[in-house]
Amino acid sequence: MDLNLKVNENGGMTIGNLDVGEIADGYGTPLYLVDEERIRNNYKRVFNAFTKYYEKFRILYACKANTNLSVMRILEEEGSSIDAVSPGEVYTSLKAGFTPERILFTGNNVKDDELKFVDRQNVLINLDSISQLERLAKIVDPENYRISFRVNPMVGAGHHEHCITGGVMSKFGIKEEEAPNVYKKAVDLGFKPVGMHSHIGSGILDPKPFKLATNALLDVAGNVASKVDLDFEFLDLGGGLGIPYTPDEKLLDIDRFAEEITGIFKTKTKEYGLGDPYLYIEPGRYLVGDASVLLTRVNTIKNSYRKFVGVDAGFNTLLRPAMYGSYHHVVVVNRARDEEVERVDVAGNICESGDLFARDRILPKVEEGDLLAILNAGAYSFSMASQYNSRPRPAEVLVNNGKIELIRERETYEDLFNGQIVPKRLQK
Amino acid sequence: MDLNLKVNENGGMTIGNLDVGEIADGYGTPLYLVDEERIRNNYKRVFNAFTKYYEKFRILYACKANTNLSVMRILEEEGSSIDAVSPGEVYTSLKAGFTPERILFTGNNVKDDELKFVDRQNVLINLDSISQLERLAKIVDPENYRISFRVNPMVGAGHHEHCITGGVMSKFGIKEEEAPNVYKKAVDLGFKPVGMHSHIGSGILDPKPFKLATNALLDVAGNVASKVDLDFEFLDLGGGLGIPYTPDEKLLDIDRFAEEITGIFKTKTKEYGLGDPYLYIEPGRYLVGDASVLLTRVNTIKNSYRKFVGVDAGFNTLLRPAMYGSYHHVVVVNRARDEEVERVDVAGNICESGDLFARDRILPKVEEGDLLAILNAGAYSFSMASQYNSRPRPAEVLVNNGKIELIRERETYEDLFNGQIVPKRLQK
Repeated sequence: MDLNLKVNENGGMTIGNLDVGEIADGYGTPLYLVDEERIRNNYKRVFNAFTKYYEKFRILYACKANTNLSVMRILEEEGSSIDAVSPGEVYTSLKAGFTPERILFTGNNVKDDELKFVDRQNVLINLDSISQLERLAKIVDPENYRISFRVNPMVGAGHHEHCITGGVMSKFGIKEEEAPNVYKKAVDLGFKPVGMHSHIGSGILDPKPFKLATNALLDVAGNVASKVDLDFEFLDLGGGLGIPYTPDEKLLDIDRFAEEITGIFKTKTKEYGLGDPYLYIEPGRYLVGDASVLLTRVNTIKNSYRKFVGVDAGFNTLLRPAMYGSYHHVVVVNRARDEEVERVDVAGNICESGDLFARDRILPKVEEGDLLAILNAGAYSFSMASQYNSRPRPAEVLVNNGKIELIRERETYEDLFNGQIVPKRLQK
Repeated sequence: MDLNLKVNENGGMTIGNLDVGEIADGYGTPLYLVDEERIRNNYKRVFNAFTKYYEKFRILYACKANTNLSVMRILEEEGSSIDAVSPGEVYTSLKAGFTPERILFTGNNVKDDELKFVDRQNVLINLDSISQLERLAKIVDPENYRISFRVNPMVGAGHHEHCITGGVMSKFGIKEEEAPNVYKKAVDLGFKPVGMHSHIGSGILDPKPFKLATNALLDVAGNVASKVDLDFEFLDLGGGLGIPYTPDEKLLDIDRFAEEITGIFKTKTKEYGLGDPYLYIEPGRYLVGDASVLLTRVNTIKNSYRKFVGVDAGFNTLLRPAMYGSYHHVVVVNRARDEEVERVDVAGNICESGDLFARDRILPKVEEGDLLAILNAGAYSFSMASQYNSRPRPAEVLVNNGKIELIRERETYEDLFNGQIVPKRLQK
């Protein structure tokens, strides 16, 4: 079972001694329920695993996974840094109390105004393209201005199907063979390159592609350092650490993972004479993914040509199943001890045929009024929510230490009109 | 060329005599630009085509396509009715000045509170399931209470690949073979069924599946009327009228379409002795899809293993290409007369490898600073927008009669925090 959800003696469920059914009654559904302790433990697990083997280590939380301010405050308290991919994420991180030194900005297809904004916040810019470098040189005084680059190592092309953000099809980063020239160009312009970054994919549960990527990044960094006069303060392996979504997927062995990655890191930095730079990683999903569930109530049982369990959330609430075909495990909260006896489709309330949370899922016999928990709904869930079908976005609550706190109010119908202006001539 | 965009002598573009480049300069990008005249013409074209052949005809705008209040005001002025799929859409329609009689509510997986809300607004409920019927019977006094049903005719299963919202996999409607019993049950409960509805799919450019669907719906209605004592005030064929997205797709011949559909309608209503019910259709995309463009500016040209044209919008702004693989034609506004000479990927600014508006698209030679228009961005575009990657949603402007009006303000970074509450104990 995920997070701190437990099945109780009545076949219901509790989280930190709170009855999940009562939480849903109190705050309504659909509702995102966030487990604070799980986030803290996830952070500590990664931090402790890596620092056991390599002290100069930082976790940059990839906040695109979940930018809720309370979630970010929890990670700030834990000591995390931030991977921000947009000026809005920089703004959000500052609002959440992260100092500029703890934020690294890696934007893709960023415009000048956005570079200017990030520069004004004194946040380090990890450049994704030669275009960005050239434009930044006109925006700031390059002399000793600290920057970094995202490179696109060819690892992944053919090695592992998950390695989708690296390789020839990728819009991200600078080609590995161009890296020495780009760093040299930066130095010639007066910039002070202090880091290198790459990111190979997401949802990875196997250390192998990471090991390849670590080797690849270190090789590029070594090559650059042999040709350009610079010192790397950090080498950033990016994110992609997965969590098990399906019952047969297994947790990443984080200790072994840390040992292997830091092993390569230490060997290669020594081999290339790179000194002892900081090792950064950028987990998002791993820190927050399994710390939330989406609670949604069954309102309709439909025996059509298939059996549908209809709920009060839709793909506007949680997009991943409809967009990526992602699996999310579904638990019937008030029948947690019941046997799984029938095959159903769990359907959302959006008017699109693809609005299904699950196809052919074996569940206990579900009735109208039952409460479902859609697990692993902490990453890329609320952050991708929309108001499609004029459905207001749901509330979020935080569970901590046996207490519950509302951290985001449910939107109202009036919120659908924020910012809209009907010209006088069109008013009735 | 779409809407009223025209190429001018300098190779730029105008809409209603306004320079599109100047609009982008004035309001910033990304920007949705809506052409009022196009919406009015689209409505009139459908209305005139059908009423030429059958007078008792109503267009119910499927407002999930675009719920901008100004867009809805335009269609209200034209005389449209509304297909609303959620209580929020009912609320929005009333706000936009539609009287309750002009709104039909067809909700999927609707909860009791929502049925109560729609009932209180005096909006007719088109029931999607037996569950809804039974629950409504407890919520309202059924005596003479007017209702309708959505049926799921088996047309489509095997007939046409687009017929995806009908057939055995569909979560929508009541099985056609159950329809007589369900209508009888409704009548026995005291309800007054006044309509029947079906909907077969979307994006259809060919009259064939509609003709099959019209036949199928009329057959079900005839079967029901032969077994249950009722009079149909309306038969609703649903939506699905497509628009050409790719240059080689052709416009639906709306006149021929109307003639064929009304022909079947008249023949079958006579054959089954159904009198002369209203014929409803529910176009969404057809009315508003080609009336908007998304303007987005190129900030990055990247020669990686492929050539990327990077722009300042992303799939949070326009989801269809990333979610459905949809084609949207792209025009370089300031090079509208230039020859198309190079193959590029048009990439958004979201940190996901799938954030591309186009792969392998042949465009004129694009430079940084160029302005792109992504065409046919009026339907399922802003309505599906999110704040993913902490990117505020864009502004919308309305062009009418050579004038331009802001109809939705660009969101700010502070809008990302609406409704959020950070518990005191977590505040820094």
